[in-house]
Amino acid sequence: MIDNLSLPELVAQMFVVRASGCLFDHQIRYPEWEPTASKLRYYLEKLGVGGVILVGGSAAELAVRSHQLQSWAKFPLLLAADIEEGVGQRFAGATWFGPPMAIAEIAGHDAAAADRYAEQMGSVTAIEARAIGLNWILAPVVDVNNNPDNPVINVRAFGETAEIVGKLAAAFIRGAIEHPVLTTAKHFPGHGDTAVDSHLELPVLPHSPDRLAAVELPPFVEAIAAGVDAVMSAHLLIPAWDAQFPATLSRKILIGKLREELGFDGLIVTDALVMGAIANKYGANEAAVLAAEAGADVLLMPLDPEAAILAVCEAVTQGRISIAQIKESVKRIWEAKIKVGLLIEQTATNPKFDPPQPPLAKGGSFSDLPPQPPLAKGGSFSDLPPQPPLSKGGSFSDLGLLANPEARATAADILRDSLKFGGNLPLIAKKPSENQFLRNLIIVDDVLGCEFLGKHTPAIALPQQFGYELQLIDDRTGAIAHNASAEHFSPTLLQIFIRGNCFRGSAGLTQAARDWFKTLLSTGELQAVLIYGSPYVLEQFLPHLPPSIPYVFCFGQMPAAQSLALELLFGTDKTGHA
Amino acid sequence: MIDNLSLPELVAQMFVVRASGCLFDHQIRYPEWEPTASKLRYYLEKLGVGGVILVGGSAAELAVRSHQLQSWAKFPLLLAADIEEGVGQRFAGATWFGPPMAIAEIAGHDAAAADRYAEQMGSVTAIEARAIGLNWILAPVVDVNNNPDNPVINVRAFGETAEIVGKLAAAFIRGAIEHPVLTTAKHFPGHGDTAVDSHLELPVLPHSPDRLAAVELPPFVEAIAAGVDAVMSAHLLIPAWDAQFPATLSRKILIGKLREELGFDGLIVTDALVMGAIANKYGANEAAVLAAEAGADVLLMPLDPEAAILAVCEAVTQGRISIAQIKESVKRIWEAKIKVGLLIEQTATNPKFDPPQPPLAKGGSFSDLPPQPPLAKGGSFSDLPPQPPLSKGGSFSDLGLLANPEARATAADILRDSLKFGGNLPLIAKKPSENQFLRNLIIVDDVLGCEFLGKHTPAIALPQQFGYELQLIDDRTGAIAHNASAEHFSPTLLQIFIRGNCFRGSAGLTQAARDWFKTLLSTGELQAVLIYGSPYVLEQFLPHLPPSIPYVFCFGQMPAAQSLALELLFGTDKTGHA
Repeated sequence: MIDNLSLPELVAQMFVVRASGCLFDHQIRYPEWEPTASKLRYYLEKLGVGGVILVGGSAAELAVRSHQLQSWAKFPLLLAADIEEGVGQRFAGATWFGPPMAIAEIAGHDAAAADRYAEQMGSVTAIEARAIGLNWILAPVVDVNNNPDNPVINVRAFGETAEIVGKLAAAFIRGAIEHPVLTTAKHFPGHGDTAVDSHLELPVLPHSPDRLAAVELPPFVEAIAAGVDAVMSAHLLIPAWDAQFPATLSRKILIGKLREELGFDGLIVTDALVMGAIANKYGANEAAVLAAEAGADVLLMPLDPEAAILAVCEAVTQGRISIAQIKESVKRIWEAKIKVGLLIEQTATNPKFDPPQPPLAKGGSFSDLPPQPPLAKGGSFSDLPPQPPLSKGGSFSDLGLLANPEARATAADILRDSLKFGGNLPLIAKKPSENQFLRNLIIVDDVLGCEFLGKHTPAIALPQQFGYELQLIDDRTGAIAHNASAEHFSPTLLQIFIRGNCFRGSAGLTQAARDWFKTLLSTGELQAVLIYGSPYVLEQFLPHLPPSIPYVFCFGQMPAAQSLALELLFGTDKTGHA
Repeated sequence: MIDNLSLPELVAQMFVVRASGCLFDHQIRYPEWEPTASKLRYYLEKLGVGGVILVGGSAAELAVRSHQLQSWAKFPLLLAADIEEGVGQRFAGATWFGPPMAIAEIAGHDAAAADRYAEQMGSVTAIEARAIGLNWILAPVVDVNNNPDNPVINVRAFGETAEIVGKLAAAFIRGAIEHPVLTTAKHFPGHGDTAVDSHLELPVLPHSPDRLAAVELPPFVEAIAAGVDAVMSAHLLIPAWDAQFPATLSRKILIGKLREELGFDGLIVTDALVMGAIANKYGANEAAVLAAEAGADVLLMPLDPEAAILAVCEAVTQGRISIAQIKESVKRIWEAKIKVGLLIEQTATNPKFDPPQPPLAKGGSFSDLPPQPPLAKGGSFSDLPPQPPLSKGGSFSDLGLLANPEARATAADILRDSLKFGGNLPLIAKKPSENQFLRNLIIVDDVLGCEFLGKHTPAIALPQQFGYELQLIDDRTGAIAHNASAEHFSPTLLQIFIRGNCFRGSAGLTQAARDWFKTLLSTGELQAVLIYGSPYVLEQFLPHLPPSIPYVFCFGQMPAAQSLALELLFGTDKTGHA
């Protein structure tokens, strides 16, 4: 069947382009990366690209969007997303588990529970991905985060040792693999020990082959043994293996190490080709050619898909890449599509979807509803039983599979079991004397980027019930004049939301957080500290924190995490009453 | 058919309850007002309430939500929303026009254009409401905003005189009425001349009957003549008409004035019964009884729907309200439902929806898709022609009716044609000398409530292209130490986002805006002023602004408005290049 495809069609199948998960062009937030509907449709319908990676939009929107994209596509699509913390991390409405490192924390005191949690997280993520039309999970991260300054992996990792990362990632894969969805071990050969963000520039991993074999590789070996479908390459230079090319562009690494030494026969997918580490040095199109030449099957997020496809075709014509290799890649992609239920055999000879023989029947479409609609008989999606994980025919009734109570309870259990706390708990909030006020000082990376905070989220609403007045700060707010005195003494609840974020280039404390912590300690106004996100930030504070001052650390930043942390701090139930 | 209903069923039809537009309980933001799915389903399925007012969620989510609610309902539902500025104001993805007062501004120089815009706004709002399952537009506002300090109406009004408000509101209704959707003139008898927010307490309108007849009433007369379907009462005390009861609870006003004097025979709907002006004084259930007693047909947003229904039933049993009056109200509601295509005749005798004779066929459902699905043949919702406004059968292909280019162009035209500006335009941005920086100072009501601002929205991204560094301020940020000197001189772009917002209790300048304006004028750092939202804020600044300093005012606050204002300021096209 692959033999019926032209060279440009074959090459186009190797590309996964990026698109907004929102439905309308005017909602596009990153116009340099996210094509308009007409351009995107052109990529899918005319060029026949192999898949789409989706960013943004709510879960319900994505369900509509997935169907739209499949209906445009020349060949059924792989639809991927970076849902490392569950579908709810990216698509509002679904279950959001919080960072994988929370489970590693639990493994420290209850290995069996941690294993179970990771497996449930994989299973729920797979079910919910399918429910909104996704068939490719770009997770688990199997990097070993043994560098606390790592700005890009950090709490996204399943731990700080090869052993725990391998164990938990394998459990995640076991949970997901029950469902017709692809999983991805990333970022090969290991992005955990860098202090440079590859979104910005190229990090170097200066380790010896022995060290790589001891620390970086084992989790990949375990993921492969667990049946992972894809491995994503890192934009990392590893001089011990290839002094010239970063992993994504290195045949020595992708073929020599991953394919041959580790025996991985699934999809090799690059990390995003638009990332600074690659794009800046090689140029967007040449990077795609080099990655294909190096042995990557799937080329993710080219800057200009059409130009990149042309460049790869030209490389084949010129003999830089053999047509046999291209066909081998497309064959792997084809098999992956069949595995997730895209009936590519039928469509290869008759590429345009052609009802009433719906090619998407198992693939989460809603255009092929049977005449007896699943929602019609008084029932509705909210009262569907959580089983079976995939309703036949696929429809919006699948949305009823999202955020089911059991999944949400598991997510909350993980956050609760990984809380760290100390000092005199609970904090008894006392009314301050006149001229004083209670301050709820919240420090974030960026007030414009904290969707997890709103007037009604617990970090703000709950302290307000006790009389704490909000001050919201980021580094951009500027230095704030602060003179504590007898008349202006403000007992302060310090809440810090900081974790490693791509593009920020740092995982550590912001200046504002550092300054305020020091000031509040010196004035004696610091009542309690809550940290959401990075355990490394907690570690920086702990040595300086008097043992009586209560603190709570939670891996999650979302409202559910805020609620857990504050309930522990104040010793209250959910209503805010002690 | 109404005769088949029990008293509780009849009374329940008179209630419209509030619900979140999001799909999942964990997304509920206002738990005191928005019931969980199981409670909401109970109201709809068991109590048989007449309708739902929806708040929150994206347009795509609302389409799913509408269907879900209809599938739960004992009787087909009126689904309402406060979409005064178009569907996109509340539900992301759809067209957002900005405040009606922008059109009144245009009327000052081009009456015909203003009329056309208002009609188009009505038409687009109706089409888009239907496309996501809504059948009741809680607009137009026909209040005459002749009090610049009005904290609650303000730019929501179609102008400052009875004449222009009546004319434009009638045009809006003409545009909407072409489609099977209800319109609502509000807030009777006129909420434009109050300086108190009725969300918080009860305002008093101390005017004489003559003045009320000359200013407040004429727009209602025009709206009724234009065929408006519903009139919403205001929570206002008007001593000249009724010294005891506010309009919502006054039979003298609802029946004596609205029904009898103005001859309105459509739906009389209360404003939200949970609002402070009513709820605080009368108690939630008694307020519902008093409103029904006064002649309201539809009781909006009771605090506890079940208790309110019981209270009204009891009032009927006790003889406080006649059963005949209740039936008359339900008859009006029934007729309204028939008008919007809810086939209530069939369901009254056989209340549970019963496919294959789908009662929702014209009502925007997707559970009754024919076996030949509308999306299947390679087509998709994004390439549907804008006509017809309602696809038969209703389905997600209706989403293709949202935000069509023509509608969005009209929205942009309205904002562009109502810009106010002056001073030396365009502003030529110059690199400051060393130790100086260009400051983009943005002042908002509340940094936690400004969804219209993000890293990638024009107000932030565009000045950044010219080297302006962002500072984002609200009153809560606190006073910021500011010492301009030769070394610390920061030419500043001052952008203020302020308009009357419910619950804020003020429409005017915040202290932060006042202080910074004054400071920047005195230091000579003020380069330009941009105001988004309230023209009254502009009026407060203008007398103090040196004539050379450029300023731009735009009624809208959304990204499209920011883009228009900044392009005018910098004399650039959309890409930011001059």
